Amino acid sequence: MALNQNFRIGRKALLLLLNEEDKKQHERLADAGWCYCTGKVGSMEAHKVVAAVETAAKNNQIINKELYREGHALYHAIIEALQGVTRGQVQIGSVLRTVGLSFSVVRGSPYENSAEGEWIAVSLYGTIGAPVKGAEHETIGLGINHI
Amino acid sequence: MALNQNFRIGRKALLLLLNEEDKKQHERLADAGWCYCTGKVGSMEAHKVVAAVETAAKNNQIINKELYREGHALYHAIIEALQGVTRGQVQIGSVLRTVGLSFSVVRGSPYENSAEGEWIAVSLYGTIGAPVKGAEHETIGLGINHI
Amino acid sequence: MALNQNFRIGRKALLLLLNEEDKKQHERLADAGWCYCTGKVGSMEAHKVVAAVETAAKNNQIINKELYREGHALYHAIIEALQGVTRGQVQIGSVLRTVGLSFSVVRGSPYENSAEGEWIAVSLYGTIGAPVKGAEHETIGLGINHI
Amino acid sequence: MALNQNFRIGRKALLLLLNEEDKKQHERLADAGWCYCTGKVGSMEAHKVVAAVETAAKNNQIINKELYREGHALYHAIIEALQGVTRGQVQIGSVLRTVGLSFSVVRGSPYENSAEGEWIAVSLYGTIGAPVKGAEHETIGLGINHI
Amino acid sequence: MALNQNFRIGRKALLLLLNEEDKKQHERLADAGWCYCTGKVGSMEAHKVVAAVETAAKNNQIINKELYREGHALYHAIIEALQGVTRGQVQIGSVLRTVGLSFSVVRGSPYENSAEGEWIAVSLYGTIGAPVKGAEHETIGLGINHI
Amino acid sequence: MALNQNFRIGRKALLLLLNEEDKKQHERLADAGWCYCTGKVGSMEAHKVVAAVETAAKNNQIINKELYREGHALYHAIIEALQGVTRGQVQIGSVLRTVGLSFSVVRGSPYENSAEGEWIAVSLYGTIGAPVKGAEHETIGLGINHI
Ligand SMILES: [Mg+2]
Ligand SMILES: [Mg+2]
Ligand SMILES: [Mg+2]
Ligand SMILES: [Mg+2]
Ligand SMILES: [Mg+2]
Ligand SMILES: [Mg+2]
Repeated sequence: MALNQNFRIGRKALLLLLNEEDKKQHERLADAGWCYCTGKVGSMEAHKVVAAVETAAKNNQIINKELYREGHALYHAIIEALQGVTRGQVQIGSVLRTVGLSFSVVRGSPYENSAEGEWIAVSLYGTIGAPVKGAEHETIGLGINHI
Repeated sequence: MALNQNFRIGRKALLLLLNEEDKKQHERLADAGWCYCTGKVGSMEAHKVVAAVETAAKNNQIINKELYREGHALYHAIIEALQGVTRGQVQIGSVLRTVGLSFSVVRGSPYENSAEGEWIAVSLYGTIGAPVKGAEHETIGLGINHI
Repeated sequence: MALNQNFRIGRKALLLLLNEEDKKQHERLADAGWCYCTGKVGSMEAHKVVAAVETAAKNNQIINKELYREGHALYHAIIEALQGVTRGQVQIGSVLRTVGLSFSVVRGSPYENSAEGEWIAVSLYGTIGAPVKGAEHETIGLGINHI
Repeated sequence: MALNQNFRIGRKALLLLLNEEDKKQHERLADAGWCYCTGKVGSMEAHKVVAAVETAAKNNQIINKELYREGHALYHAIIEALQGVTRGQVQIGSVLRTVGLSFSVVRGSPYENSAEGEWIAVSLYGTIGAPVKGAEHETIGLGINHI
Repeated sequence: MALNQNFRIGRKALLLLLNEEDKKQHERLADAGWCYCTGKVGSMEAHKVVAAVETAAKNNQIINKELYREGHALYHAIIEALQGVTRGQVQIGSVLRTVGLSFSVVRGSPYENSAEGEWIAVSLYGTIGAPVKGAEHETIGLGINHI
Repeated sequence: MALNQNFRIGRKALLLLLNEEDKKQHERLADAGWCYCTGKVGSMEAHKVVAAVETAAKNNQIINKELYREGHALYHAIIEALQGVTRGQVQIGSVLRTVGLSFSVVRGSPYENSAEGEWIAVSLYGTIGAPVKGAEHETIGLGINHI
């Protein structure tokens, strides 16, 4: 069941956000036959963050939009990532804060045993804070699910 | 109030964990006069994760162990980071899972305006899963607080 | 203090939803002198689920709408049932999901000792998922309170 | 993506617990080629409830214990079911209460489109209350996941 | 349904803790025929706080220990009060902190309409912090329930 | 690190709300050179409660509105206080309830060791309940942070 240390899906999703200048990171993912996408979303509404990630994942064929099981896997990964971002209640504007986030979604096979199949990682990184320019600090979240 | 884009404390804390091979990252932090430490902890008990990070931060003089205000700042940053790791309830063994985490603690001045003073970032990265070798996936958390 | 095994209020509330074809279930409740009502609600807003259950319970005289203590008992039972439905945060549309629920409210005396008095059970059963036809799975919740 | 109204996996998991006398329910599941198991667990420790359900599911070949992806699917379904049981924090003895639960685990294909594949439902039903005989009320939980 | 402004049960429970020198407060409660008790508990385990309050309430005849409905009302009031004390997860030592609390339990009829009957208020006030002398700040909680 | 028993910041914030008639309380705070403000807010939206407290604290110079670190300290204190008020999810109208609150914000140095510096306490006290006149009970919350 062991994770392949060269193909850690969460780490790859995170580095897509943190090392935006790193071309090699993109090549390595492509070489492995993994698919991924990145995007940005700023909002005071959690459902808009969910929608932005879902839409990007569908439009980039990371998940098959005809299959609920893939949407379900993605949805729970997004919510888990949002829990890291919001740390306590999955609420943004309703508790008077706003987020500016980059996100990545990576789909691949991170386990050495190929029977473990595909998994999906959603990573969010950016800022959270008051709806006042600059009154914010960084935040991150990662959600991982089997797909 | 703006964050200095070259000194994002959370990103630095995260890269300390994700780019462990990167010497330059350590140099840049030292050049900026920031202090930081890293460590590892594996446990089924959340309080042992808290204790491992607190002890490392105190032993490496990241915080002054004589001052409760510094311990208070660190504590809340650790708990926020743990919320990203645990995604829902800050519980590990009590819901039959275990974590193997690397952690970093970074203290520095990430805002352009020096009056914003020092902040502390706690980052956790590793795996979470069943208490069975390999039955685990990655997880991350980041907590940031003024100090 | 023991629960009367023939008059388990939660089980009865659940079977009202799950065995909708079962006439005997309704007769047994009526024979025991218990009162109950059922209804349906679909919404992306948790407060509309709360309101639908409260309104049905008041309109069917399950609770006395002039007494706050009865409304208070019912309210907490509804919120507890919603926690089973939402599993983590009592949010629906704000995290981009929707529910289609049947509900039942049962009021009766489920304990062998009559001094234990009346209790109220709220049961919710239906689907939760994306706001896309069919992209949903089942969900249930049960809240029980003394009244 | 629609749920097949004759094969609602959550409803079946719930009826396995609530209609324990109902032979037909077992036949219908067997006829559909679904697999399932039931069991009981009483504890003041949440991790023992998780372990009891996991062990039963593995011993009855509901999931393949060699594959983490199946264990992962089951684990999250159990935790979701426990959220319905505990309604707020997934804690039992640590907040001075105890549970006596029956559980069922059902694995099958509840969607009309066979490409939706297999799903797993975990249902918990029983009592929760003070560690005093009879000082308890009923509780239920349902968790559903793709597998 | 209005609260009687001279008999606000939560305020009285709080003042019992905060104005410990105030004799008149005790007289006013006695004059109204309300019953109450106070006590202290220090612990790293939430269940010991629950037990301390429950035991005091039973030993002082604030609730009838033979009736589960009274124990149920008290239990939920205690847990609600603990949520104010713990602010996020009802955990103490499991996240490496400790509490030193005074508590009060008040039972009375706070509404102008006597049909609203009796209610119970649990108030907790004290300190929470690291298990290090002085590394702590104040905390409060209030839970109110119909009984 | 010990708290000065004569200058407990949380107790003072609470008494500002509970003993509104007490002139001496105000004098004692002024004599100590502490600053504070009080106000009222009624709303079904949590973000309006946050905004009301933030605005009062800024307009009364309790915090420096040019510094994010002070706003950050205040924000987390408000959210912690709201957790006592809402007991479980920091939601008001979205779960069909409303609050009518008085609040106080106190800034001062509550520790005997002056190196512990300034802290901020936010206290909320009032009623929570259905959006129906009188269908409500009392509620309280206290959040404390270093500043
Ligand atoms: Mg997982
Ligand atoms: Mg913050
Ligand atoms: Mg209960
Ligand atoms: Mg789901
Ligand atoms: Mg209430
Ligand atoms: Mg604190």
